[in-house]
Amino acid sequence: MNFQYLLELIGTFFFAVSGALAIQDKEGDWFSAGFTGFITAIGGGSLRDVLLGSYPLAWVADINFLYSILAGVIVAIIFFRVIIRLRKTFLLFDTLGISFFTILGVEKAISLGVQPEIAAIMGMFTAVMGGVMRDTLTNELPVIFRKEIYATACLMGAILYLILDLHTPLERNYNLIISISVIILIRLFSVKFKLALPGFNR
Amino acid sequence: MNFQYLLELIGTFFFAVSGALAIQDKEGDWFSAGFTGFITAIGGGSLRDVLLGSYPLAWVADINFLYSILAGVIVAIIFFRVIIRLRKTFLLFDTLGISFFTILGVEKAISLGVQPEIAAIMGMFTAVMGGVMRDTLTNELPVIFRKEIYATACLMGAILYLILDLHTPLERNYNLIISISVIILIRLFSVKFKLALPGFNR
Amino acid sequence: MNFQYLLELIGTFFFAVSGALAIQDKEGDWFSAGFTGFITAIGGGSLRDVLLGSYPLAWVADINFLYSILAGVIVAIIFFRVIIRLRKTFLLFDTLGISFFTILGVEKAISLGVQPEIAAIMGMFTAVMGGVMRDTLTNELPVIFRKEIYATACLMGAILYLILDLHTPLERNYNLIISISVIILIRLFSVKFKLALPGFNR
Repeated sequence: MNFQYLLELIGTFFFAVSGALAIQDKEGDWFSAGFTGFITAIGGGSLRDVLLGSYPLAWVADINFLYSILAGVIVAIIFFRVIIRLRKTFLLFDTLGISFFTILGVEKAISLGVQPEIAAIMGMFTAVMGGVMRDTLTNELPVIFRKEIYATACLMGAILYLILDLHTPLERNYNLIISISVIILIRLFSVKFKLALPGFNR
Repeated sequence: MNFQYLLELIGTFFFAVSGALAIQDKEGDWFSAGFTGFITAIGGGSLRDVLLGSYPLAWVADINFLYSILAGVIVAIIFFRVIIRLRKTFLLFDTLGISFFTILGVEKAISLGVQPEIAAIMGMFTAVMGGVMRDTLTNELPVIFRKEIYATACLMGAILYLILDLHTPLERNYNLIISISVIILIRLFSVKFKLALPGFNR
Repeated sequence: MNFQYLLELIGTFFFAVSGALAIQDKEGDWFSAGFTGFITAIGGGSLRDVLLGSYPLAWVADINFLYSILAGVIVAIIFFRVIIRLRKTFLLFDTLGISFFTILGVEKAISLGVQPEIAAIMGMFTAVMGGVMRDTLTNELPVIFRKEIYATACLMGAILYLILDLHTPLERNYNLIISISVIILIRLFSVKFKLALPGFNR
């Protein structure tokens, strides 16, 4: 429980770093970096909770999320030359973040009593919609429309988690580790081997 | 009642087809098509219900909407060469969809106790905001800002429905047919004769 | 109380004027002007209330807000050649609007029991997010990412209001006047002297 809470704060921190960096090519100032960092970090979870009518939102109820975001934005501003160079490290952190938040989002949705198919979508939304909002606000084509497998990996991991949860006696913690690992593997393999789903104009 | 429910599922199906096709000129893959199809289909109704605080959202409570969307996306992927060629058929289906969802949205809002003016806006939102979200996400200027009369037709039909509902003894089913027909006629006439509202820079 | 309500209606009116004018360079028609005017006027407050789960939204419960918006849009359509020329007057009205709505948003959030840090963000959201939605919908880079200090002024004023409210015995009305004045001064000075926060790529 405490360990999971710590992971949530760390995940929020990394989302904020990635959001703040989104402004690097724009004319954005420190405020812009904070704003995109904030939206990226809280967007997905907030959308899920608003769609499910689950109040209060996590970051409204618990001020620690805000401080995680603030720390992420400050780190991004101070160390951005270093972070930019560490593209591979960054990919890894982003992948850790989306995989973890996907499964947390699925669990939250299930706990609110929705059907598994809806929970899978909510899990994926939790992971990727903050980034989608960030890209929409900065006039970029959202990350989910770009080439490699991204949100699809989240959706696959969410479905796997739900199948293992509902149809096997596997304990929750093992299921968590397996599902998160599968998302990470799909994502990293698809980047390494430039895998993509079939295009629409085959 | 059952007939109306069937119409809602069919309308959702067509919105999903139209949303999935929005990705055709982009680099989008199957996932992107599913994502835009989903947003287009549930965006307007979800926005209405979130603004009115009406939970649970229809597609969260009833899994059949998700399957309608999935069917629409699959049809769009498989038959997209055919569908693209049938532009006129497509215009007809889109027009049927927005006219029907406008009046359903008005009725939903009225049933939640809002004033008629607000219900008219909610009806129009139900019909067009899914498309607006689709266009915003894919970096297009939203459909409602383009030349021909589109959302205005929905707004006119919504107002007509409310006037007939509140100030005449006309039965609901006749009112439904009249209002939907008026939206369809305004929309199709405006496309055929390239009618437009006065521009802002007269 | 009555005076504050009047100010809210006037603020809504000016936000609607500014939103309707956003469409001037596009191909938008009267409907587009009304749509962007509406979104600009109700977007920030609606987002705040949806994030806080506070229903009903003000403009849904009280039809006078809708009429203020309608009046603003009509004024923008009729007098837009005059308004465009009065750029300085317009900056002043926009500044009055964001400063006033920031503090009202803070007070609303505090009255709903959130912590001060969250209330500050909600105040800033109330003031600027309608404009952000307007810019996103019309495919512009949102106003908050542009050069001069804008949302930052709102955030500073919100924080000042909260410090004075929580840590001094200052009466609410004096606090209101001081905090609003500070936002106005920061904003107008930053425009006059082209002040900006440090850029991200120092």
